[in-house]
Amino acid sequence: MKTDLECFPCFLKQTLSAAAVAKMNRNQTQKAVKEVLNILKDINMELPPPLMGRDIHNIIKKISENPDPYKELKNFQNNTALKLLDELKNEIAYAEDSFETAVKFSIAGNAIDLGTSTTVSADVKDSFKNALAKQIDKAEVSKLKKEIENSKKILFLADNSGEIIFDIPLMEYIGKEKLTVAVRSNPIINDVTLKEAEQCKISSMFKVIENGSDLPGTWLDECRENFKNEFESSDLIISKGQGNFETLSSLNRSIFYLFLVKCKVIAKITGQKPDTFIIQKI
Amino acid sequence: MKTDLECFPCFLKQTLSAAAVAKMNRNQTQKAVKEVLNILKDINMELPPPLMGRDIHNIIKKISENPDPYKELKNFQNNTALKLLDELKNEIAYAEDSFETAVKFSIAGNAIDLGTSTTVSADVKDSFKNALAKQIDKAEVSKLKKEIENSKKILFLADNSGEIIFDIPLMEYIGKEKLTVAVRSNPIINDVTLKEAEQCKISSMFKVIENGSDLPGTWLDECRENFKNEFESSDLIISKGQGNFETLSSLNRSIFYLFLVKCKVIAKITGQKPDTFIIQKI
Repeated sequence: MKTDLECFPCFLKQTLSAAAVAKMNRNQTQKAVKEVLNILKDINMELPPPLMGRDIHNIIKKISENPDPYKELKNFQNNTALKLLDELKNEIAYAEDSFETAVKFSIAGNAIDLGTSTTVSADVKDSFKNALAKQIDKAEVSKLKKEIENSKKILFLADNSGEIIFDIPLMEYIGKEKLTVAVRSNPIINDVTLKEAEQCKISSMFKVIENGSDLPGTWLDECRENFKNEFESSDLIISKGQGNFETLSSLNRSIFYLFLVKCKVIAKITGQKPDTFIIQKI
Repeated sequence: MKTDLECFPCFLKQTLSAAAVAKMNRNQTQKAVKEVLNILKDINMELPPPLMGRDIHNIIKKISENPDPYKELKNFQNNTALKLLDELKNEIAYAEDSFETAVKFSIAGNAIDLGTSTTVSADVKDSFKNALAKQIDKAEVSKLKKEIENSKKILFLADNSGEIIFDIPLMEYIGKEKLTVAVRSNPIINDVTLKEAEQCKISSMFKVIENGSDLPGTWLDECRENFKNEFESSDLIISKGQGNFETLSSLNRSIFYLFLVKCKVIAKITGQKPDTFIIQKI
């Protein structure tokens, strides 16, 4: 997708929130905002928003002199999510439709703010209850199930820390023989890199590859050869999160997208309301 | 108050929403956004946000070649509010504390989106019911009542169209002998100017003066002499809306502010949560 003018306020919000995560002081934050404004005024709007997202986070990394400002947050999110995993698996085991529930948890992982408390708060548990009560397109769920069964080689494009733990039941359903999980090559926001995939043991459960990029999305122009080969040769691609959707949606390649609609721009493109759980092959 | 970095995303949102009201096309909107970005990168953050607000709306007026893009909306808001006035006055007449209810309606006027339907929708009526259920600081309400009774000359700084209709019960409580209502001199957003005050008959009910400015606030440096004299010589000043608060709060003059906390920046300054009804002498 192209960048929309409606993305502009959001770029500045991202700058401020990333500056806060990087514990930047007021002067550093102001410097970052000015640099972002300078880039924004000459932005190429034909390119998808995650390219500007990368510029923003590069500015934050440079000014804070921290190559991975979200490091602690990523650990926290994975650890918190791991504490919930047994409970989720239990819910799935006893669900009327285990596959649909696994899919819902995977999309919910894209939606839920895991908070900042070291114990799993009642709010987080409530968020999961709400996620289970959400409607998703049952026809698309059946289609995904069928495609998983009929595919020999499935590529799963992972998204954030924390979220990836909630993808485990779906990944286990697919099975490690068929599955390759792709992660970013360099730290960007709270996206999973190989380091987090190792820390939370995903890499010992499934085959994990790096995509070669530091974008909060999957922009093939910048991805490494072995990732592109995997992308081309897979029978089915499952893509998690808005960033992957934003960077892939204009490709001439059919992909199963799983994400929460987080903004008005994506709502307009998908024809769904914000906060909708999207499962759609496009 | 000074401008906060948190205001920056909001400036861009304002630009986009004003461009939509002015029915600007994509190219015009993009041009407006670029001009706003150019001003933003050199903004003087020592000044309050409504000064940047004026710059934004001047850009919109220039590009849309429309000196008053909110004209229709202002008429609509006043007409819709007028349809509700008798009902509100009835509520006030039968309320346990009529003065407190009049104050609540005045602040609610700052909060309620009157929608776009030509009939008064159930949503708008629900908003008013919610407003009546809101808590406000009863000690400050009593203080305002006492000060109104003890003052001989009261200046009321009006804010938006629509909202001003909901101020009428409070203005009537004050009484036309004591009261002067101040409005902006030139169109800015949906703020009331003399034209709207005349259209909705406020100017035939009360003494109305212009403040000499086209800012969405009250910035004394730019106000005309007769307004400044009124400001200095009044025993009590009642200020409606965030814009007036933002431009007046650093003055060395005690003012009674009535508004809804609409953003995180004002929440931080007032120590209140967003969506709180503020009645406070500062």
